[in-house]
Amino acid sequence: MAVILAVNAGSSSVKVSVFTAEKGGTPSQVAEAQVSGLTAPPAVLRYARGDASVIPHREVGDAVNDQRSAFATILDALIADPDLPVIRRREDVSIICHRIVHGGDFAKPQLIVDHTYSHLEALNDLAPLHNANSLGIIRQCCDWLPHARNVACFDTQFHATIPRHIRTYPIDQAIARSNRLRKYGFHGLSYSFIARSVARHLGRPLRETSIIALHLGSGASACAIRGGRSWDTSMGLTPLAGLPGATRSGSVDPSLVFHYASDVGKLSPASTRDLHISRAEEILNKEAGWKALTGTTDFGKIAAAAAAAAGRSRKRAPEGAENRIAAEEEEVEEEEHDNDEDTRNKRLAFDLFVDRISGFIGSYYVTLRGQVDALVFAGGIGEKSDLLRSAVVDQVSCLGFRLDEEANGAGGGRQENGKEPIVWDIGKEGITPRVLVCKTDEQFEMARLCAEGEEFW
Amino acid sequence: MAVILAVNAGSSSVKVSVFTAEKGGTPSQVAEAQVSGLTAPPAVLRYARGDASVIPHREVGDAVNDQRSAFATILDALIADPDLPVIRRREDVSIICHRIVHGGDFAKPQLIVDHTYSHLEALNDLAPLHNANSLGIIRQCCDWLPHARNVACFDTQFHATIPRHIRTYPIDQAIARSNRLRKYGFHGLSYSFIARSVARHLGRPLRETSIIALHLGSGASACAIRGGRSWDTSMGLTPLAGLPGATRSGSVDPSLVFHYASDVGKLSPASTRDLHISRAEEILNKEAGWKALTGTTDFGKIAAAAAAAAGRSRKRAPEGAENRIAAEEEEVEEEEHDNDEDTRNKRLAFDLFVDRISGFIGSYYVTLRGQVDALVFAGGIGEKSDLLRSAVVDQVSCLGFRLDEEANGAGGGRQENGKEPIVWDIGKEGITPRVLVCKTDEQFEMARLCAEGEEFW
Repeated sequence: MAVILAVNAGSSSVKVSVFTAEKGGTPSQVAEAQVSGLTAPPAVLRYARGDASVIPHREVGDAVNDQRSAFATILDALIADPDLPVIRRREDVSIICHRIVHGGDFAKPQLIVDHTYSHLEALNDLAPLHNANSLGIIRQCCDWLPHARNVACFDTQFHATIPRHIRTYPIDQAIARSNRLRKYGFHGLSYSFIARSVARHLGRPLRETSIIALHLGSGASACAIRGGRSWDTSMGLTPLAGLPGATRSGSVDPSLVFHYASDVGKLSPASTRDLHISRAEEILNKEAGWKALTGTTDFGKIAAAAAAAAGRSRKRAPEGAENRIAAEEEEVEEEEHDNDEDTRNKRLAFDLFVDRISGFIGSYYVTLRGQVDALVFAGGIGEKSDLLRSAVVDQVSCLGFRLDEEANGAGGGRQENGKEPIVWDIGKEGITPRVLVCKTDEQFEMARLCAEGEEFW
Repeated sequence: MAVILAVNAGSSSVKVSVFTAEKGGTPSQVAEAQVSGLTAPPAVLRYARGDASVIPHREVGDAVNDQRSAFATILDALIADPDLPVIRRREDVSIICHRIVHGGDFAKPQLIVDHTYSHLEALNDLAPLHNANSLGIIRQCCDWLPHARNVACFDTQFHATIPRHIRTYPIDQAIARSNRLRKYGFHGLSYSFIARSVARHLGRPLRETSIIALHLGSGASACAIRGGRSWDTSMGLTPLAGLPGATRSGSVDPSLVFHYASDVGKLSPASTRDLHISRAEEILNKEAGWKALTGTTDFGKIAAAAAAAAGRSRKRAPEGAENRIAAEEEEVEEEEHDNDEDTRNKRLAFDLFVDRISGFIGSYYVTLRGQVDALVFAGGIGEKSDLLRSAVVDQVSCLGFRLDEEANGAGGGRQENGKEPIVWDIGKEGITPRVLVCKTDEQFEMARLCAEGEEFW
């Protein structure tokens, strides 16, 4: 039995899940810890062992202000817990797997040795906003836990199966090759987890399972999964393309940013010697999305305000067509005194997100040639926002998707053997394709990949 | 009866169609002239009166090297033709309508007076590669034909009905408002013509006609038309977004260009004092598309090579699934000795174009909630490439579209009363929705708008 740490370093947080696993076996999670608020100190540590919340909320002081110090804080908490016997000291950790956003052409996890590390550093250029978060921790782990094997797991690797005519950009191919410009896709650890979990839920072999999966969080994407493999996805060379997110524009006219501000090609003040971020990439990744439309990154608030406003409109326009809300928006708005600017903006953001998501569902339904077993919602918003799911499924009902409104509104699946389900069904009974929700788990997926990879033992 | 000239100025050509019309009546075309090759002198004049080719091909000398001199050459040819009695002298021209690519917020054609002209100049910023072509001719017409009324017809105006949640980019809305950043859409004169012509063909009122229209030429776009009005379209703030074209990338990750070359934010050497074109916009508009993938802008050649190669693969892999071609590309390629790099590139370009077009069809099927009367192919490639139509309709057959392969391959519709049809049906009998081809006519649409607009008489 080995202890596997799965490390997920974001721009303002570090999450570590602790698993035990046999070689080739299914990992079992024993604990989970997180430091959040790195960009808004003081950072906060939370630590849970199984169902027990050991440290519900502890401010950890201003010295914990980057990914490395956050990881150190978590490691100390794990070792200090007398009720976590699998980790008494650093040497008890066998494998540390690190989520890396951009993995270039890697089609599977990589054991990190010197040349892998250099390769990862080189990939920084393609994802300066993302990869750097993980690299500091990897270096630290090599120093502090020299007995452990470090494994890089990539958000891109699941998408290595996207066929050439879909992943290619129609640009100069010599430059595309030398600068490695193609669609890579992201959220791949999540989609890999979703594909396996949904296949199991449906009782089908993975290789015969085709789904349209939506990972909707503060970063959002869609994926067409054909026979268990990625066939297309909405993110591209970087996570910017495709759906909008909390602060990300998603796909916009590639000319747009040049009309947004002058000097967008120049380096942003946030750049460092090693980290080159253009002002344009900063604008489109950090200063856009539904935050730019509504002032909040909390999609739950946006959905609630939009639904309340739509409900009011419907009451006043009972005989309107189903699309009345959007089509005759201006007219409706003028009638409504309580529909203030803030609510209007939230409704715009909600309708816009539903429109873009539904567009990808239509597009992927076609690329899968209508052979779709299920539409799957995942990610924070996908799991929690019944309002969003309801609006999306309504919009794509022409493709045969139907919701069981009661199951959709029930807030989670029915417990099985006292455990929360990983996948639950919110589709109308008796209809194919199904509509599902999946509680995705990127850390588990990393641990699983490591447990299965003989070369990591 | 009045004479209307419809002027369509492109980057290397000027086309003028001559119509006669009564106020409020349907225009009737009497002649058509074109100067092409402005960017590859000597330019060539062609002039036809009805079915008679008066000047089949005449080199016009190096002095004809811009849109203004091209227009002057055409005007002289019209006046010089003794068999075109409706134009004996400049004063015989009553209305000149000009196709303008970017019309900003204008929802209908505008009579050009001083303040309109300034407004059009201001729009140059949004479409520096496109609008400037027309402005020179407009100024010239005001000088030379002071008795005529000049009318600006916009490629954007048809899309003024796109609802707010679809036309909005999720970016800072204060900047969006001040810099006028939203989806405008283009090819609108063509889509307006297509919508009317298809409604007539189907025997339905325009307001009850919903179609997915594809204008596929060296610039290509798709449009969801709901109840005769534009509901969504693939081009955006500029014509760059959406489908790839002959030299245009279409939608790519908005970060891509910053990884393509350094200094993409700087002005291109092609810029002038009044015309600001970033290097990025030049790369993505002029140095990409299927030319970048294959070396040719001739899509007919690309389709022919791709179809021949696909035919060879199918013969060798008779039991493969329908998607074998793309999915197992690499393996198939290795088997084929005659499938050289040039052919491979053409096939990639073809498959890529089919994939992107089919994606928009799926997306628009959903946004129209499955209420689609017809899928309509138009534009040079849409009209001529039966191979492309066949591949696209096959890809979207899960939405219910079916081709009559014989009608599709027949190369144009059946003549009615000795005239070529404007719309012809290539769908399988007895099936709804229909699949149609439309010979679109932007010049006619401009003349029609002018004939109908009381304010222009």
